[in-house]
Amino acid sequence: MNKIQEIIQGIKPLDLGIMEKTQVRLDNLTKPQGSLGRLEELAKIITGITGNENPGLENKVIFTLASDHGVTEEGISPYPKEVTAQMVYNFLNGTAGINVLSRHCGARVVVVDIGVAEEIKIKKDLIVEKINYGTKNMINGAAMSMEEAEKSIETGMRVFETELAKGINMAGTGEMGIGNTTASSAITACLCGRPIEEVTGRGAGLDDKGLEHKIRVINKALEINRPDPGNPIQVLSKIGGYEIGGLTGIILACGFYKIPVVIDGFISGAAALIAYKLQPKIKDYMIASHCSMEKGHGVILSQIGLKPLLDLGLRLGEGTGSALAMNIIEASVKILSQMATFKNAGVSERTK
Amino acid sequence: MNKIQEIIQGIKPLDLGIMEKTQVRLDNLTKPQGSLGRLEELAKIITGITGNENPGLENKVIFTLASDHGVTEEGISPYPKEVTAQMVYNFLNGTAGINVLSRHCGARVVVVDIGVAEEIKIKKDLIVEKINYGTKNMINGAAMSMEEAEKSIETGMRVFETELAKGINMAGTGEMGIGNTTASSAITACLCGRPIEEVTGRGAGLDDKGLEHKIRVINKALEINRPDPGNPIQVLSKIGGYEIGGLTGIILACGFYKIPVVIDGFISGAAALIAYKLQPKIKDYMIASHCSMEKGHGVILSQIGLKPLLDLGLRLGEGTGSALAMNIIEASVKILSQMATFKNAGVSERTK
Repeated sequence: MNKIQEIIQGIKPLDLGIMEKTQVRLDNLTKPQGSLGRLEELAKIITGITGNENPGLENKVIFTLASDHGVTEEGISPYPKEVTAQMVYNFLNGTAGINVLSRHCGARVVVVDIGVAEEIKIKKDLIVEKINYGTKNMINGAAMSMEEAEKSIETGMRVFETELAKGINMAGTGEMGIGNTTASSAITACLCGRPIEEVTGRGAGLDDKGLEHKIRVINKALEINRPDPGNPIQVLSKIGGYEIGGLTGIILACGFYKIPVVIDGFISGAAALIAYKLQPKIKDYMIASHCSMEKGHGVILSQIGLKPLLDLGLRLGEGTGSALAMNIIEASVKILSQMATFKNAGVSERTK
Repeated sequence: MNKIQEIIQGIKPLDLGIMEKTQVRLDNLTKPQGSLGRLEELAKIITGITGNENPGLENKVIFTLASDHGVTEEGISPYPKEVTAQMVYNFLNGTAGINVLSRHCGARVVVVDIGVAEEIKIKKDLIVEKINYGTKNMINGAAMSMEEAEKSIETGMRVFETELAKGINMAGTGEMGIGNTTASSAITACLCGRPIEEVTGRGAGLDDKGLEHKIRVINKALEINRPDPGNPIQVLSKIGGYEIGGLTGIILACGFYKIPVVIDGFISGAAALIAYKLQPKIKDYMIASHCSMEKGHGVILSQIGLKPLLDLGLRLGEGTGSALAMNIIEASVKILSQMATFKNAGVSERTK
């Protein structure tokens, strides 16, 4: 059995016994029952995921995977593809959006070059696990080979395991890759069986004409590749990206190792969708951080059955939504561990 | 001119010049323009409120005002009224929801007894500014005198000024008072001109019968008091509460002193509504933290014209929504101060 199958088959349902106990504890805390809404849901889920009645979420890690996309040759992004590498330098310098928001929530950012089209010259704080120098242009055939698709998922799993050894209580997904909303829309159209126009948005800011062109490009890519929705790894190989495969691996590994995984926006959502199609049980380990402005994202969330925590009009990616949501998720377990019960605090319970 | 009029008339529009400069700065940061959605809006508003191009929000204070309500005699809450005082002890002990969430976001909680029906025996960390020992039962006449209503607003203003001297960059509102959703629904029905049923919810967890009874009680209170929607302080005196008046004072003082004020849920919303009716300019200084499960809250938010940041099914009060939102608001100004520009980071700008 290969690593991917081993991880997929090792993902178990949540610990329902602990979740029931958590519910009783939540109901005894000094507040009307259920009055902390989704915080209570989150606390319960985290105990079920971790199997720990008093989980702490101090060690937070956001995985930001960078990779290039051959389909940028078609002019589907308003930004030149060099921006992928330039943004990796920005990450390593600590001055991108994800750095600011990760510091703010107390998370560590793990930056992975899983397929940037050029060599990144600064190696400090960078994990280099290049599958290749960017994918091929998917309008001419598969974006990558099946071997590369599998390798990208396995790479995500291995990167996660290495970081897990240093300590992770909660993981978040993030990415950078000019052109990757195009791949994500193609994946969403294929795996959700929806018309391309319904799942394709403006990415980094296309105008109407640019959006129409992007839809035509995705249409061509789907026609030439004819990906099989019943074979998610083949879908990844034909119309995906290395960072998407890597994130799929990280998400699945989170399930295997019982670590809550916070899913960022649309591209992370496409990775989550592939993970879900490979193993539906992974859904219970996922927390959807926010609802992206990118229209395909809502389709993914409803397909998996996730309700996003935040709706702040974000569409940056990198893991920025994950970082913001992590703060709320961490708050939920502090409620569980730090609030007094009615009995301890001497507060009267409801009389009717 | 009395203190209330002085503060109301001293509230000025936001600094539009600084807000324009902030927009230009935001547009030059290494991200697609507008891609951080409401974070960008928030950063811009905070510069406009404070008049500071590089605002820091380190000093965060949540004001949790506690008071009792005579209308609890009518059995409109599932909890006995002693819970108000009991929860004050819980606040002082650091083990209530607001304590946990304030510690989590790095805010200080200022607990004020502005009208609890009994003496609180622990004075450490408690500000005692009792207007009276709970309001009167509003189904028999005014909940408080006009003098008390004015005094509650002034008290909020003075409490704020005392804390401001210790340092406040961002304030949040919160409250505790068994029966105060009844007062808040009455205020909302009156000031928004809406049927009582549309603005009355289950509070701390009433069943259907309890909810019907609560609506009848509010109806009686409005019939006997006939509050004048054109006179917000009179509305406060007839059907309000001391903590609501105190929060109105704090909110108005935030406008006067150019401090962003984060509005919690329904009861804080009723206080914000009174403040808005006294001085519509105060709207620009308010940030609505979340949308409460209590149905009247949405009516208040749309009346003032505020869009809540979070929607997490909260209905606890105390300032818990404010504390959660403060984290996101603080993130917004860090984006402004810590992210690199395209130029500084050597990242290519959009080509089309």
